[in-house]
Amino acid sequence: MRSFRKELWFNTTNRRQFINITPQVQQCLDESGIKEGLLLCNAMHITSSVFINDDESGLHHDFEIWLEKLAPEKPHSQYRHNSFEDNADAHLKRSVMGREVVVAISNGKLDFGPWEQIFYGEFDGKRGKRVLVKIIGD
Amino acid sequence: MRSFRKELWFNTTNRRQFINITPQVQQCLDESGIKEGLLLCNAMHITSSVFINDDESGLHHDFEIWLEKLAPEKPHSQYRHNSFEDNADAHLKRSVMGREVVVAISNGKLDFGPWEQIFYGEFDGKRGKRVLVKIIGD
Amino acid sequence: MRSFRKELWFNTTNRRQFINITPQVQQCLDESGIKEGLLLCNAMHITSSVFINDDESGLHHDFEIWLEKLAPEKPHSQYRHNSFEDNADAHLKRSVMGREVVVAISNGKLDFGPWEQIFYGEFDGKRGKRVLVKIIGD
Repeated sequence: MRSFRKELWFNTTNRRQFINITPQVQQCLDESGIKEGLLLCNAMHITSSVFINDDESGLHHDFEIWLEKLAPEKPHSQYRHNSFEDNADAHLKRSVMGREVVVAISNGKLDFGPWEQIFYGEFDGKRGKRVLVKIIGD
Repeated sequence: MRSFRKELWFNTTNRRQFINITPQVQQCLDESGIKEGLLLCNAMHITSSVFINDDESGLHHDFEIWLEKLAPEKPHSQYRHNSFEDNADAHLKRSVMGREVVVAISNGKLDFGPWEQIFYGEFDGKRGKRVLVKIIGD
Repeated sequence: MRSFRKELWFNTTNRRQFINITPQVQQCLDESGIKEGLLLCNAMHITSSVFINDDESGLHHDFEIWLEKLAPEKPHSQYRHNSFEDNADAHLKRSVMGREVVVAISNGKLDFGPWEQIFYGEFDGKRGKRVLVKIIGD
């Protein structure tokens, strides 16, 4: 069994932002040389997500509106976590969107359906944060 | 390390529908001959889910009502994604229910608790869509 | 490829409770002797979760309030599942928080960011329930 590990760093312009990281994850897979196995891609921070969905800007706008409805950022004082922080909503939003994805590797490729793309979902940005890519297989 | 890959196809009668796919996943495991490892089962489409929960029709009804409350289908015009599509709600519902499950394989069996069953959750159906089963192990 | 399996048992005092299980999961990893691989940690019950977030009591309070808003326990009669049960809300809450986490194992350690901790999330407790830890790798 072979394994591969790499960290990807992001520093978003906005507090909340979605970044299509499929090219960087594909590059990790190419570097690994692994042909059959599983790839884990997870946020290393608890106020951001890695998820798979559509690369369509209208949908990303809908996600922003929807997540703000489910777990509003403001008023900050509505959350007990926000006595020393202001990011409780980011912890909640990340719970909806998920911490990680696991992707099958088949014939050296990300084994995806037609529209699957991997996104980094930032909910408390404007600072350097990391995503882990771990691949195991042969 | 051995690996196994199979696609399962579904074409639901309704726009939204839950299908217990545990027997098909079990059959994949039997075909693979793998005794110890991990099994990934994921929707290959971004408007459907694979999740583990109870095979109880009352609960499935509750899920339908609840997901419609969290991310209503109509009016379609409430979502920016729906300029050329009508399925923005399906993208959101699938985010709540999840894209994938990872299941332990122990002694050649799905290593499940007493009530765990794997479901395909369709949120934009009436057309052929796929689930991927990938197994790695020995 | 090596593999390791262990069940962790929990019996909470309250119906809903979060327990930091990182030390027990770390102990599983130590027992396994696996240095590079993937670790799956999942609830074996469909009314509880395993998730990764912050070990901060204010945030846990916020989660309780937020999950009760998204999927209220009472009145029990609002859910069709509750004809013979009273835990439909627990099935919904667990869907938001997730069944499982997959963690990279690198150099014999849980490959975590600075604040990542693994939690057992109980939504229908006061009885013995199980979490599965499965590790594969070398």
